[in-house]
Amino acid sequence: MIVLKIGGNVINNPATLHESLDYFASLLEPAVLVHGGGRKASQVITEMGREPVMIDGRRVTDLATLEIVTMVYAGMLNKDLVAQLQARGTNAIGLSGADGNAVLAQKRPVKDIDYGFAGDVTAVNAPLLDALLRLGLRPVLCPITHDSHGQLLNTNADTIANETATALAGMEHEVSLRYCFELPGVLTDIADHGSVIPELTPESYARYRADGQIAGGMVPKLDNAFAALRAGVTEVVIGDIASLREGRGTRIRLNRD
Amino acid sequence: MIVLKIGGNVINNPATLHESLDYFASLLEPAVLVHGGGRKASQVITEMGREPVMIDGRRVTDLATLEIVTMVYAGMLNKDLVAQLQARGTNAIGLSGADGNAVLAQKRPVKDIDYGFAGDVTAVNAPLLDALLRLGLRPVLCPITHDSHGQLLNTNADTIANETATALAGMEHEVSLRYCFELPGVLTDIADHGSVIPELTPESYARYRADGQIAGGMVPKLDNAFAALRAGVTEVVIGDIASLREGRGTRIRLNRD
Repeated sequence: MIVLKIGGNVINNPATLHESLDYFASLLEPAVLVHGGGRKASQVITEMGREPVMIDGRRVTDLATLEIVTMVYAGMLNKDLVAQLQARGTNAIGLSGADGNAVLAQKRPVKDIDYGFAGDVTAVNAPLLDALLRLGLRPVLCPITHDSHGQLLNTNADTIANETATALAGMEHEVSLRYCFELPGVLTDIADHGSVIPELTPESYARYRADGQIAGGMVPKLDNAFAALRAGVTEVVIGDIASLREGRGTRIRLNRD
Repeated sequence: MIVLKIGGNVINNPATLHESLDYFASLLEPAVLVHGGGRKASQVITEMGREPVMIDGRRVTDLATLEIVTMVYAGMLNKDLVAQLQARGTNAIGLSGADGNAVLAQKRPVKDIDYGFAGDVTAVNAPLLDALLRLGLRPVLCPITHDSHGQLLNTNADTIANETATALAGMEHEVSLRYCFELPGVLTDIADHGSVIPELTPESYARYRADGQIAGGMVPKLDNAFAALRAGVTEVVIGDIASLREGRGTRIRLNRD
């Protein structure tokens, strides 16, 4: 079973978006797609005369912003991806976290920063996803969740992908979690796209971190990947669409084969 | 099995919207909700600096308008209804026509008027709806469909409700199709809400039309209702939320009991 996450940068570029949909449609295994938001939400927020607010790269979601991201992520983006997958013969079904109670979250508690209607995932409904997959459907999850009390919440798509893969692994599925982003994999030298690390284990990851060859934004991504593996996910693969398609990218496992 | 359609005027008013969701959540039978658009789409179109275009009460859907109605109907409205149903303990799942190929349509051919990306329903995927209902889910359909070639289409919600009821009846289900709108039923005198016709058959409908007591916008609604009955739907009930809840309204059947 495959959980494929496509990030905002992949969605923003029509060419990579189409390639990633071709790739998802070509998968032979039962598969779930999780998509991020991309720049369209900020564009609509601006068109509607509002100012996007980000703190440390995370969106601050007031009620008006929540309404707009719900429109863009769950409406425009999700339905466009589903329609394009249907055109490829893939029986996609778009879901927000509220649909079928697919992804439950709680409003992020206010500590130093009030992120507003941002949701932290508390449960992914793996039996629902499993039942839809058994019907031959391919769930397409957008980064909008709910709290089961009527409140929709804006939620990080990486977290949804991670929790979805973990929840499906908990149902005795062998799950490959694939992150499609703009780089060909985890690099030892950010300036050199040829410096992809083909395989990471906890031991080699610790060495790369000690050497300073893996740092910055890649660290939380990889920490999450290892957490998913320890929770039962079989492998995590990170790369751009060409890498994933050709079986390259960075393959992350708990143990060497 | 019940197919409940709630119209734009019901959605526009928070009180009637909540009552109609309470009613839908209270139904004991397997049930499908079909919702219209309401005035929110025109509001967002205006906020984004565009001018809503209507001809004979039907929206002309250019590409920019299609993007906005997809955001509003499939995103904001549909997800808000689903989240509010989840809060009532109803396991709703929101669907556009593209999701699971639920409602297939074709772009309306241009005759005198070019309605743009308006879709005429060609097929409702009753086996999908049936499978979701068997999983204990309640489909919530928004008035966005697709053509299976990647194009989303803006579609009349009454037609979707009618075709959904007909398609489910074709699977040997006994289907009650209920239209919730702003009036307590079909009236013989539009100024008198006490003039509800409790029951209509083809014979009595013909008499009311000959007398001029039923005219105007109610005629296509009732023609569609009788078409659904002839296609196998058991009954059609038209009324406001209080009427439907209390088993009143206008009950339309092919034969008297």
